[in-house]
Amino acid sequence: MVSKFLRVNTTTGEVKFEEVPEKYLALGGRALTSQLVFDEVPPTCDPLGPYNKLVIAPGLLSGTNAPSSGRLSVGGKSPLTGGIKEANAGGIASQKLANLGIKAIILEGKPAGSDWYLLKVTPAGAELLPANDLAGKGTYEVTAVCRERYGNKVAVITIGPAGEMLMLAAGVTNNDSEGNSSRYAGRGGLGAVMGSKKIKAIVVDSPTTFDAPVKEPERFKAAARKFTQILQNHPVTGQGLPSYGTNVLMNIINEAGALPTRNFRFGRFDKASEVSGEKLAEVAVARGGKATHTCHPGCVMRCSNVYPMPDGKVCAPIEYETAWSFGPNLEIGDLDVIAKLNYICNDVGLDTIETGCTLGVLMEAGVIPFGDGEAAIKALEEVAKGTPLGRIIGSGSANAGRVYGVTRVPAVKGQGIPAYDPRACKGNGVTYATTPMGADHTAGYAVTANILKVGGYVDPLKPESQVELSRNLQIATAAVDSTGLCLFVAFAVLDNPEGLPTIVEMINAQYGLNLTPDDALNLGKQVLKLEREFNFKAGFTSADDRLPEFFSLEELPPHNVVFDVKEEELDQVFNF
Amino acid sequence: MVSKFLRVNTTTGEVKFEEVPEKYLALGGRALTSQLVFDEVPPTCDPLGPYNKLVIAPGLLSGTNAPSSGRLSVGGKSPLTGGIKEANAGGIASQKLANLGIKAIILEGKPAGSDWYLLKVTPAGAELLPANDLAGKGTYEVTAVCRERYGNKVAVITIGPAGEMLMLAAGVTNNDSEGNSSRYAGRGGLGAVMGSKKIKAIVVDSPTTFDAPVKEPERFKAAARKFTQILQNHPVTGQGLPSYGTNVLMNIINEAGALPTRNFRFGRFDKASEVSGEKLAEVAVARGGKATHTCHPGCVMRCSNVYPMPDGKVCAPIEYETAWSFGPNLEIGDLDVIAKLNYICNDVGLDTIETGCTLGVLMEAGVIPFGDGEAAIKALEEVAKGTPLGRIIGSGSANAGRVYGVTRVPAVKGQGIPAYDPRACKGNGVTYATTPMGADHTAGYAVTANILKVGGYVDPLKPESQVELSRNLQIATAAVDSTGLCLFVAFAVLDNPEGLPTIVEMINAQYGLNLTPDDALNLGKQVLKLEREFNFKAGFTSADDRLPEFFSLEELPPHNVVFDVKEEELDQVFNF
Repeated sequence: MVSKFLRVNTTTGEVKFEEVPEKYLALGGRALTSQLVFDEVPPTCDPLGPYNKLVIAPGLLSGTNAPSSGRLSVGGKSPLTGGIKEANAGGIASQKLANLGIKAIILEGKPAGSDWYLLKVTPAGAELLPANDLAGKGTYEVTAVCRERYGNKVAVITIGPAGEMLMLAAGVTNNDSEGNSSRYAGRGGLGAVMGSKKIKAIVVDSPTTFDAPVKEPERFKAAARKFTQILQNHPVTGQGLPSYGTNVLMNIINEAGALPTRNFRFGRFDKASEVSGEKLAEVAVARGGKATHTCHPGCVMRCSNVYPMPDGKVCAPIEYETAWSFGPNLEIGDLDVIAKLNYICNDVGLDTIETGCTLGVLMEAGVIPFGDGEAAIKALEEVAKGTPLGRIIGSGSANAGRVYGVTRVPAVKGQGIPAYDPRACKGNGVTYATTPMGADHTAGYAVTANILKVGGYVDPLKPESQVELSRNLQIATAAVDSTGLCLFVAFAVLDNPEGLPTIVEMINAQYGLNLTPDDALNLGKQVLKLEREFNFKAGFTSADDRLPEFFSLEELPPHNVVFDVKEEELDQVFNF
Repeated sequence: MVSKFLRVNTTTGEVKFEEVPEKYLALGGRALTSQLVFDEVPPTCDPLGPYNKLVIAPGLLSGTNAPSSGRLSVGGKSPLTGGIKEANAGGIASQKLANLGIKAIILEGKPAGSDWYLLKVTPAGAELLPANDLAGKGTYEVTAVCRERYGNKVAVITIGPAGEMLMLAAGVTNNDSEGNSSRYAGRGGLGAVMGSKKIKAIVVDSPTTFDAPVKEPERFKAAARKFTQILQNHPVTGQGLPSYGTNVLMNIINEAGALPTRNFRFGRFDKASEVSGEKLAEVAVARGGKATHTCHPGCVMRCSNVYPMPDGKVCAPIEYETAWSFGPNLEIGDLDVIAKLNYICNDVGLDTIETGCTLGVLMEAGVIPFGDGEAAIKALEEVAKGTPLGRIIGSGSANAGRVYGVTRVPAVKGQGIPAYDPRACKGNGVTYATTPMGADHTAGYAVTANILKVGGYVDPLKPESQVELSRNLQIATAAVDSTGLCLFVAFAVLDNPEGLPTIVEMINAQYGLNLTPDDALNLGKQVLKLEREFNFKAGFTSADDRLPEFFSLEELPPHNVVFDVKEEELDQVFNF
């Protein structure tokens, strides 16, 4: 099987497979989406216009037996940040695409009409089908209809009404094995880009999940087995995450005084334990849900969950960042309210982090009272209706701040800051400020050394050494994001010197390459450099690599710290 | 009388007069506001935060007998564009400030509380007074209350509820001699900056209007007399503007095919004559209004008007750009509807150009039907109520475009494009794209040579020579904007070689200087250079010096032209 690009010209309706040019052969995931966006999208183009493209790519290892390797990368020019964007997700689409030999789907152009389309991809080929009947439907229904129509093994990559309405906080989702449409490439508004191309859904039908071609199967199997052990032997990936999922962080970050509360006013929330991973597991299990769950087949960390809601519906999952964005951030201490807000976002097609930040800004503006879960739910229900308030919510936190004249807006490059206050977790602050992605905890997750004491220790409250920490993590992350491996493998890789070589060994065995660990890091550097260059051409400068003013003006209790990493230092992050 | 700065620290409530440092002595108007903003405001600061400042300055010639010299400059970092901003207006405040020897008012800091203040300035001094009783009131009522309270000769510089609510399209207004609060420094959201400082109004009480100190009175008088003749002898400033006001342009621009219609979809409007200056004069006079009117005492062009509305209220004035923004731009061919929309904007405190562009974007999004005047009025009435829709309208066109996912948004640097389509008046297109002010026709009004054949002729439909035209006009404008002279003197100055030397002669006579016409142009260059430098530091790049994508993709009827001045050429505008 020769891997190929699937290129869809939405202006003309042409669908074609292309041979993959040699320069892209050793790229996957983020490295591939960013390289294609860099090569094919004019940096100054309108993100919702005909010149932008949406690129969907499995990682290098996706579709094999490599553990936890089923992440799907989605890239394009972000309508939220105006810069280059890659967001990745679990779900079952990545592995299926890889098993069909599809290295990337490229959606380009822009149709003149108002009709919606579905892209159907099977071993027999690919075609665009009419999909007006799916327009306006939530992602859960779209996924259910497609599984009904095309078989319950298909992967459904889709957008909700938010993406159709071109809302800047709209994400691209795909489903897990149970058909829950909640594995979101959420950040940066790529759902609006998909909406601008009038593609409501992409159905991927593959008979296999783990049979992507591997050149040296035995060598690969040995490396994959070893990597599984490395993950299982680390306390975070082997015990912490598999026990309570990502939301195990709630109590930890609260204890560290870095849990952004009441729109980043405080670092601790008195009801943190009520919305913690421990509590979530207890309630979920009591109601017949699951405290652990894989976001994609073959994951050994199982850090997700299935949370049955009082109304009988299931919210799967409630990740830590979502529990934070709708919990402490809004002073809401009720998991059922959080689950409801999470579910609405998943269904209407909005990024939960961005939406939580936006609701925080609306509470700051007095539109909704802090702590009022019912009011938050009511407001969020406006999104699907497309009312002015719904539109404002769907446009993201920075936009909402501009609409309401709010200065206390936690956003960088137009994207909301996630669940770790940059004043009390300064390594993350450096990442938020400088990553080409806009504020993004996954771009250089310094919580590791700052709070979890993984990969060393750097005092989270002091400005020293945070730039170096963030730099190294951003490089490593760009590399990991290209493999299809879940970023969480980094916990183990940072502490185990055999981690990175084993990842490289898997890639070498799969593709018949002779890469070294240094090559992997160089790939990470190269990805960051071209993402930065795209952003420069799009009009970004060092003035965009800054946190909002209030983080340097207002002290964060309980440690009473401000963000004090110097601007000159921030400008050194990409000196490599 | 020694001229002074009046500095108000709104954090502490301190009000003090300061000696003017020597470097500012020969600056006025825009040159002074931009220099002070450049020197005192950190370019990356939050425009609505404590580090921004609002600077209000009369021009160099304001308060003398120089004809048409009563413009008031307002400057700061724009919350709409994120760059440096100067907006200027007529009204009576500029001359009164100059007669009090006040070279600039500088509002700085930001109060912690929610109380509103009024700054009262008289020959006896200046003080901050409580003004909570004025909060929430429209500008007409605020002005009436202040004239009642402090005498009907005072100038009232104020903001409406839009500025109080920190809306990004809020302007700063002051009144004409009759007490109409409609002389707007409208563009760029400086009303929100004033609102962020919690200053509701500035009352300026001066016993004199034309007695600003002049070092060589006889020499000055001769020059002023000569300049009056120059203005009166030119067909535009001596006949066109005094007959039908600025709205004389409606039929002219329509005839030229450059009248943006239905949100910049067409270049001609079939009901243009219904909303033209000729029609306006006819209706205004028939209803007992005025076809001509001075926006400030001592103006010889009298290009404004007084339009009585059917409900008995008076809209003064309806300028061409407003008649366009609410007329052809929205496909509304009814002067009474335009007057009503204009009046609401004046009262609530919004820039009419920006608001018309925003309503156009909302019509594009389908929120309001094109051509539906009643729906537009109803929507605009939401602003004062602060509803979500009202907030969106108040946040400006670019923001509304983001909220509604609209790609056809006529804005540069976040500011709406005014009444001359850049495809059929390409010199203005170059100005819109490149001026540090965000899209602004007054920053380099190439309509002169493109359409009016003033100052030569450059074919408006061709890309050639537009950069040079815009460059020269931008330089001259920056100089004129520093004098307090109305920009319209440029019509005469461009065609009369004695124009510029006579302006310089007035300045020399007033201040005892020995400037040459070259010095004046050098001042213009210097102003532009520091405005550009501020913007670069604030994060602007050449990518910001571009028109929206649709102007190069969609042909404008009837000439079926796109904007085709090359990007490399746009980047040459400031090569001087």
